[in-house]
Amino acid sequence: MRKCYGGIDLGGTFIKAGLLSRDGRRIARSKISTEVDSGVAAVEANLLKAGRRLCDLAARRKLKLAGIGIGSPGTVKYPEGIITGSSPNIPGWVGSNMRNLFSGFPIPVSGDNDANCMGLAESMFGAGKGTKSGFYLTIGTGIGGALVVNGSLVRGASFAAGEYGHTIFKYGGIKYKTGQRGPLEAYVAAPALIKQTKEAVRKAKKSILTGNLNSLTPEDIFEAFTSGDRAAVESVSRNAEMIGVAIGSIVNLLNPEVVVIGGGMSKGGAKYIELIRKAAKSFAFDSATSILKIKVARFGNDAGWIGAACLNILKDGD
Amino acid sequence: MRKCYGGIDLGGTFIKAGLLSRDGRRIARSKISTEVDSGVAAVEANLLKAGRRLCDLAARRKLKLAGIGIGSPGTVKYPEGIITGSSPNIPGWVGSNMRNLFSGFPIPVSGDNDANCMGLAESMFGAGKGTKSGFYLTIGTGIGGALVVNGSLVRGASFAAGEYGHTIFKYGGIKYKTGQRGPLEAYVAAPALIKQTKEAVRKAKKSILTGNLNSLTPEDIFEAFTSGDRAAVESVSRNAEMIGVAIGSIVNLLNPEVVVIGGGMSKGGAKYIELIRKAAKSFAFDSATSILKIKVARFGNDAGWIGAACLNILKDGD
Repeated sequence: MRKCYGGIDLGGTFIKAGLLSRDGRRIARSKISTEVDSGVAAVEANLLKAGRRLCDLAARRKLKLAGIGIGSPGTVKYPEGIITGSSPNIPGWVGSNMRNLFSGFPIPVSGDNDANCMGLAESMFGAGKGTKSGFYLTIGTGIGGALVVNGSLVRGASFAAGEYGHTIFKYGGIKYKTGQRGPLEAYVAAPALIKQTKEAVRKAKKSILTGNLNSLTPEDIFEAFTSGDRAAVESVSRNAEMIGVAIGSIVNLLNPEVVVIGGGMSKGGAKYIELIRKAAKSFAFDSATSILKIKVARFGNDAGWIGAACLNILKDGD
Repeated sequence: MRKCYGGIDLGGTFIKAGLLSRDGRRIARSKISTEVDSGVAAVEANLLKAGRRLCDLAARRKLKLAGIGIGSPGTVKYPEGIITGSSPNIPGWVGSNMRNLFSGFPIPVSGDNDANCMGLAESMFGAGKGTKSGFYLTIGTGIGGALVVNGSLVRGASFAAGEYGHTIFKYGGIKYKTGQRGPLEAYVAAPALIKQTKEAVRKAKKSILTGNLNSLTPEDIFEAFTSGDRAAVESVSRNAEMIGVAIGSIVNLLNPEVVVIGGGMSKGGAKYIELIRKAAKSFAFDSATSILKIKVARFGNDAGWIGAACLNILKDGD
C-alpha cells in the first residue's frame, strides 16, 4: 500500500488540509471553516473533522496515511504541537495540545508553527528545493518568517524563532500595536502599503484609485502600479525598496542560498519583485549575494498544509 | 604525549596566538606585530612566524600540537582558510590561502573568519558554554557577529554570515561609509558613541569630559557614565537602549538561548550591560526571552585565538 502524508493548516478563517505524496505531489485537498467565534472547543472539533476527512480521502484512494502534521499560529512546541505563546487570531488557543487532541488517531501526529510549515514546504518541494539554507518570508496582513540552515528549520530555543516582522526597521519610528517602535511590519506589510498608497493618492492630482480609497486592497494597488498610475508607482516602489532593504539585511546576517517571498504581497507581479531584488542586492554585501537567489513562493495558499505534511515525511525513514 | 591546539588571531595591528588544551585551558600565549604597512608578504611571514612559535611553545612543554587554526578578518572560506571577500584593515589580503601558506606544517590547518572564531570560543568554553544556540556580538570600532545553531557555527552559503552591523537599524538614516543608509554599526559602534557623547557634552552646561573632547575614548566615556556625569549618562544610556533594541530584534528573529556581548564596548560595566538587557527584553517578545540570557564575553582579547584553536578541537575525534 502506497503511503501518503496528511497536513492541516489552522487559520483564523479556514482550516485547509490535504494529502501529500512522499515526493511532494498534492493528492487531495479539503477546506472547512475554523469557526473561531464559536470558541476553542469548536476549533478543536473542526481540526478533528479535518483529520478524519484526511483519513477518508486516503482510504478512498487506497493509500496508507502515514502521519498527520498540523500547522498552527502562535508559538508552537515541536513536535508535540503544544501552543505555548500568543496567537491573537484564535482567542484562548494558548495551551492547546495537538498530540493530545489527536490521540485517537493511530498514526504519528506532529504540530509546528504555521510560518515554519510554509518555509518547510517551500524548502523541500517549492521555490527553495535543492537548497540547504534559506529564509522564507511571508508578507501579508502581518509578516512571518522561517529560517532553514543545513536543511533543517531553526525553531529557536523556545520555539519562537522567525519573527522578522518584529525586528527593528526604523529606530524611533512608528509606535506599533505590539508596543514596539519602528518594527518592520509597521512599514511594509499590507496595511502599511494601503495606508501609504492612500497618502500618495491624496497628494496626487489624479489617480485611478481615487474612487475606492475606502476599500483599497493590495490587489487594487498592484493593478494600478502595473498600469503605471503615478501614486501607485510611488507607494509600491517605496514598499519594494523597504522590503529589499529588509531582505538585504537578512542576507548580510544569515547569508542564505535563497530568500523566498510568500503571502499576499508576493503576488505584486514581476516588476515589483524585480524592484525588491534590486534593492536587496544593493543593500547587501557582494560577498553575501554572490550565489543568492530571491524567489517568489510556489505553493501560495497550499504552503501551510503541505509543510505540515512534510513534518512527518522528514521523520518517516522508509 | 598530551595534545594541545594552536590558535592564531590575525588582527590589523597584532597577531595574537596561543595554545589551548582540549578542555579549553589557556596553556601559552604569544603576540607579534602584523606589520600591515610592509605588505601582504610581510603579513604572511609573520603568520608563519606565529605558527612556528606555537610549535616551539608546544615542544618546550612536551605537548603534541594537534593542529593550528587561523582567524582572519574578511570573508573566509572554511575550512581551507581562503580569503574570498573584503578585509579593509589588511590591504591586498583577499586571495590569501591559509592552508597553502601553512603547507610546510605537518599538522591540520584550518582558517575561518575572526568573528566566527570569537563566537566559537565563547560558545565552547566561555559565556555560552553549555548552550546549543547563541548569538555572539562583538562591538568595538565595528560590529561583528557569529551565530551558533544546534551547537554549530552558521557560516552562510558563501561564508559571509554574521554581519549584524550592516543590517538596517534606521531606514532612511545616516549614510554610512559602506554606502548603506542607516545600518546598525553607524549608530552603536564606538565611533558613534564618541560622536554622540561629544554632542551631549557640547550641549551640557558642564561635563568632566569637556577637557578631552579631541581624544575621547569609550573608556573615558564609560568612566564618566559610572561617575554620573550627566552628558555621559545621556549618551551611554541612549547607546545601551539602541544596542538593546538591536539585540531584542535578533532575539525575535533567532530565539537563541544566549546572546553574548564582546569587544571593547562590552567593558562598559554592570550598569551599562543592565540597561542593554532591559531594553532588549522590553523590545523582544516574552515567548523569545523566557529562557534567554544576555551575557558579557569571557575571553576578551584572547577570544580570537582561542576560537581559532577550537576549529581543530571540533574536528579532532580522539
